[in-house]
Amino acid sequence: MKVKVVTRILEANDRIAEENRKRFKASGIFVVNLMGAPGAGKTSLLEKTILTLKETLRVGVIEGDIAGTDDAERISMTGVPVVQINTGGACHLDANMISEVLPDLPINDLDMVVIENVGNLVCPAEFRVGEDIKAMVLSITEGHDKPVKYPLMFQESSALVLNKIDLLPFVDVEIDRLKRDALSLNPLIKIFEVSCKTGHGIDTWAKWLRGLR
Amino acid sequence: MKVKVVTRILEANDRIAEENRKRFKASGIFVVNLMGAPGAGKTSLLEKTILTLKETLRVGVIEGDIAGTDDAERISMTGVPVVQINTGGACHLDANMISEVLPDLPINDLDMVVIENVGNLVCPAEFRVGEDIKAMVLSITEGHDKPVKYPLMFQESSALVLNKIDLLPFVDVEIDRLKRDALSLNPLIKIFEVSCKTGHGIDTWAKWLRGLR
Repeated sequence: MKVKVVTRILEANDRIAEENRKRFKASGIFVVNLMGAPGAGKTSLLEKTILTLKETLRVGVIEGDIAGTDDAERISMTGVPVVQINTGGACHLDANMISEVLPDLPINDLDMVVIENVGNLVCPAEFRVGEDIKAMVLSITEGHDKPVKYPLMFQESSALVLNKIDLLPFVDVEIDRLKRDALSLNPLIKIFEVSCKTGHGIDTWAKWLRGLR
Repeated sequence: MKVKVVTRILEANDRIAEENRKRFKASGIFVVNLMGAPGAGKTSLLEKTILTLKETLRVGVIEGDIAGTDDAERISMTGVPVVQINTGGACHLDANMISEVLPDLPINDLDMVVIENVGNLVCPAEFRVGEDIKAMVLSITEGHDKPVKYPLMFQESSALVLNKIDLLPFVDVEIDRLKRDALSLNPLIKIFEVSCKTGHGIDTWAKWLRGLR
């Protein structure tokens, strides 16, 4: 019974996700669903990415948080259009939430939309929202055991951005093991090492992202 | 309809949690539900805490992970009894999972059981499992904005353990703001600063925990 209910919720979600996708496609917009644990640095990466891309690409952002508008305020400082979703408790964004805020984005004047999901290494990976690709941010301070313990997000993501690489000398993390385990879950995952603090690796990641469109 | 289903699940969970609680109480066991984001350092804190307490307190551990047995293997090295739950996808432990593994713990020979929840700053806070208190671990690398963005876990927790305090010189985190925001959500929350790497603060935290029993 429980499984049946869950299946029905996921099916309904996928249907709305597909509608979102068609609406984005109709406007020629490439959509990234950006996921990661709380504090991995999703918003920081987004700020740096926008500043790198905004001269050549019109980017819009949908921010997902349980509560608060901190992230949307930070993103709006970069000068791009941003909409904040407060899920009010829900641990992930779903397709319906995206559908509801689409009218608030200048969808005909954008080339790319990044949807920053709720900070959570589990549930967001289960819900399509209408994206072209999923990408995940992992802070190296989270440790090398994350692929083994949270496999689905690694399997679903086209890119793994390893953030806070500047802290490598100060933490006990086996980064080669982390990469190896991520690749064994998902041989096609593209791995980037970045530091949003120093700017290391941001150009390479942003260039890859631009190339996808 | 959706709300009704969720309510029923939570009610059923609370009923089983209450049964678990009675079984623990009957054996004189104090139970801690340890929560936090992936990579916050829950297992490391637990290792250090056990090593500090094990001479004076018989501790048992229930490990919750989506997949893998890494954490249970780490804990078993400390010499205390440990049971691993693999949720197989679920983003939190629920009362029924705990009920099912209770026969695998030597419940009559324990003074305290720590239940390490799935790494997630959201969902575990919604599900009682039969604990006396909830405690949360937050790595300072996660940033000072976490209370504002993930309020429920701060509201539900009796203790907030700020881990990786040794990294303070290397990260941009306003620790006073973090504490202030946590206390404004939950004026009774007890805050500890620790480093599982250097051992800083572990004694104070472990002593507090022992005093609760």
